[in-house]
Amino acid sequence: MSPSPSVLPQDLANTLNDNAERYQQDLIEWLKIPSISSDSRRRDEVHQAADWLMKKMQAAGLKTELIPTDGFPLIYAETPAPEQTGDSPTPVALVYGHYDVQPPEPLDLWTTPPFEPAVRDGKVYARGATDDKGQVLTHVLAVCEWLQSEKPLPMQVKFLIEGEEEVGSLNLEAHLPKLADKLACDVVVVSDSSQYAVGRPAITCGLRGIATYELEVQGPSCDLHSGSFGGAVVNPAMALCQLMSSMMDSEGGIAINGLYDDVQSIPKVEREAWKLLGSDDKSFAESVGATALGGEPGFTTDERRWARPSLDINGLTSGHQGEGVKTVLPAKALAKFSFRLVPGQDPKKVTTLVRDHLMEHCPVGVTLELKPDHGASAMLADANSPYTQAASRAIEEAFGVAPVMTREGGSIPILATFQEALKCDVLLLGWGQNDDGAHSPNEKFSLEDFHRGIHASAALWQTMVG
Amino acid sequence: MSPSPSVLPQDLANTLNDNAERYQQDLIEWLKIPSISSDSRRRDEVHQAADWLMKKMQAAGLKTELIPTDGFPLIYAETPAPEQTGDSPTPVALVYGHYDVQPPEPLDLWTTPPFEPAVRDGKVYARGATDDKGQVLTHVLAVCEWLQSEKPLPMQVKFLIEGEEEVGSLNLEAHLPKLADKLACDVVVVSDSSQYAVGRPAITCGLRGIATYELEVQGPSCDLHSGSFGGAVVNPAMALCQLMSSMMDSEGGIAINGLYDDVQSIPKVEREAWKLLGSDDKSFAESVGATALGGEPGFTTDERRWARPSLDINGLTSGHQGEGVKTVLPAKALAKFSFRLVPGQDPKKVTTLVRDHLMEHCPVGVTLELKPDHGASAMLADANSPYTQAASRAIEEAFGVAPVMTREGGSIPILATFQEALKCDVLLLGWGQNDDGAHSPNEKFSLEDFHRGIHASAALWQTMVG
Repeated sequence: MSPSPSVLPQDLANTLNDNAERYQQDLIEWLKIPSISSDSRRRDEVHQAADWLMKKMQAAGLKTELIPTDGFPLIYAETPAPEQTGDSPTPVALVYGHYDVQPPEPLDLWTTPPFEPAVRDGKVYARGATDDKGQVLTHVLAVCEWLQSEKPLPMQVKFLIEGEEEVGSLNLEAHLPKLADKLACDVVVVSDSSQYAVGRPAITCGLRGIATYELEVQGPSCDLHSGSFGGAVVNPAMALCQLMSSMMDSEGGIAINGLYDDVQSIPKVEREAWKLLGSDDKSFAESVGATALGGEPGFTTDERRWARPSLDINGLTSGHQGEGVKTVLPAKALAKFSFRLVPGQDPKKVTTLVRDHLMEHCPVGVTLELKPDHGASAMLADANSPYTQAASRAIEEAFGVAPVMTREGGSIPILATFQEALKCDVLLLGWGQNDDGAHSPNEKFSLEDFHRGIHASAALWQTMVG
Repeated sequence: MSPSPSVLPQDLANTLNDNAERYQQDLIEWLKIPSISSDSRRRDEVHQAADWLMKKMQAAGLKTELIPTDGFPLIYAETPAPEQTGDSPTPVALVYGHYDVQPPEPLDLWTTPPFEPAVRDGKVYARGATDDKGQVLTHVLAVCEWLQSEKPLPMQVKFLIEGEEEVGSLNLEAHLPKLADKLACDVVVVSDSSQYAVGRPAITCGLRGIATYELEVQGPSCDLHSGSFGGAVVNPAMALCQLMSSMMDSEGGIAINGLYDDVQSIPKVEREAWKLLGSDDKSFAESVGATALGGEPGFTTDERRWARPSLDINGLTSGHQGEGVKTVLPAKALAKFSFRLVPGQDPKKVTTLVRDHLMEHCPVGVTLELKPDHGASAMLADANSPYTQAASRAIEEAFGVAPVMTREGGSIPILATFQEALKCDVLLLGWGQNDDGAHSPNEKFSLEDFHRGIHASAALWQTMVG
């Protein structure tokens, strides 16, 4: 699979090629555990998913530790530190990832059940396949095989795998300062993102931040007959629609006062590099089944999703949702919505702006309650660091082509905190694809990319030391 | 209970007073049957509710007939025609009502289960208590008692009780022409409305029409990750909010081109009479638990809910509605909404205006589907007909006070068709209260008003013949 000469010791290269079947079995076993961190009925399963990974790493000789939190535990593991030869110490890498997954709903849209992994056309379909179990496992398996090969692992690799990434990483956030010594490293390696396209691996040099909210609009104390009261009692579902649409302008931008004030503009060099990636709106729209794309005027699709703020309604709930007609004037209406933030924006300040906007636009006759959930700043990685160069060589060996430098629109809330607390570089190496359906029904992960990821990870620990 | 001298024969008056307990038991028995016409899982129960009423009327000697339709059957019943004495024939009345009920959701807001009738503070709580089983039963019991009393019922009373009023009466609509001879009458009597206030009985001289819709907005073919796609793929939930709010202006009026074109203005005499009813916005708002009222500028609360068009969102559904955060960009969003129409407006024309408006305002990147459900014109009754005068006397005897002349904002779609097909007057005698919670949790009906309604109905068949 890999072009020779490989940077890997021959026996390790052989092992990786000979055991593809076993790695798949490991992946499928882990994916069967419904570790949904946002679902209080799944607490046991989230813990099971952690235990599964602990055992896997212990068996390979890693020193592991389960760090309890107020929520789900942190998994910490490390390989033995290599003897330091010469005066330039070998770098230390910390692999970060998560063992929790998103809720699988809507279930009826899954071709096969979300927690019964099924392989079709060389892809494994299951919740968590690409986000993030499948990608975490590439590093775990690569390091485990290094530890069992003839040559020693050239550098020390640490792991911090958490169980609350999908709900904001609040407990890890709280623990990080205390863990700074244990986690001390030169670079944090994360595989929780995507390649740019099939056969076009990428190193992700930036992520957007996030701020999530629930808005409840309360009208009358109970549902009313829309005939007896309609036209005289303010309808909270209509008020919710008015409030939500008041946050968008007619062009596709966000209409909240001050929201763009702190937004850092996109460096010219990146804008030009992204244009060369040759994204095509028509085929992009087709790939997601939309009739066309839209968004903030004056920006390309990649700029809109990677480096500009966005506002999305994630859910709407009000009144009669069952079969048939029920002409009620609902007592209340609920919206779940979230912003993606870019460098310069502070989620706390966004919450203030949003609350002010909603209060100012709230119609008489209804009251509103805004509940902020979690927030995180955007992050940028150094595209020119030696670690990025090393990752580029490792990826080229495993994928047969050099990676492009991109950003992603998603958020990994904790990364900015890592940079802050550990004063380290960050390396985002995505083995997935944009259409893998993270957070969607029929989430999948290409088994070929899974194996390439394992190979690239194994190579990375070599290329990083030169 | 009634002021003497009663227009009723003494034995009948005594019977009505002595059997209150039995009438309550009948009511409770009928209310236990969950005859939800819009819920396909409740078909059997809807039929059971019809059978229950048939047996009740048969036992009292009415000639009954179950008329099958493509949906739920029509119950027809009639009393023997009295011998015509003198040359002025006695009038014939047709009592219209329905045995189907609204869905009970949201169930968690019911103090006691919707189909386990419970009596608290002199009121019976159950779905259908006031809309419409409780009110229909007053006429059925009154006529049954007349047939079993010493004196003959002074006039012929017919009944047409349907099972699809809550879903638009489409099948009755289709059958009415064929049934015109059978249903021939001078006046249709309907008790499916409310008194003006507690202790203030009313004769309802007008109802609003209705037009109901489902709007589905489709974006991408499946839910997407709002990080990877937010800002570039148009969010159908946001598009739905923009479309719904585009139909309202900032003042509280409806912003659809041409919607007010055919609206008949409210006669001065009615506007002035309504002002004398002394409605008070502050206490009205308190009675429904709202902080304030709102609506179309330039009109009072009674005018807004009785004689001006209104638009209400009845339900919203999109994306993640479960616990916790799920940052999806939903594939689609659904709204159920309805208009109340006033004299002059044609529901079919409203559908055209709504479709044109939505098409014109539909954002690029999403597609919409508008599904009209049922529609009906508003209706007006003659406040000065001899039947209205007769009803006024009967109500004054039973309630101890003369009724006020009002309208209601609700719709009884079939009544306009009755007026058309049978060339008859319509008499709307509401025994309920505005806060009875028709279509809401904890629907109730005052047992005192239930008994007064039975008495008023019995008296009506006497006062109508002078």
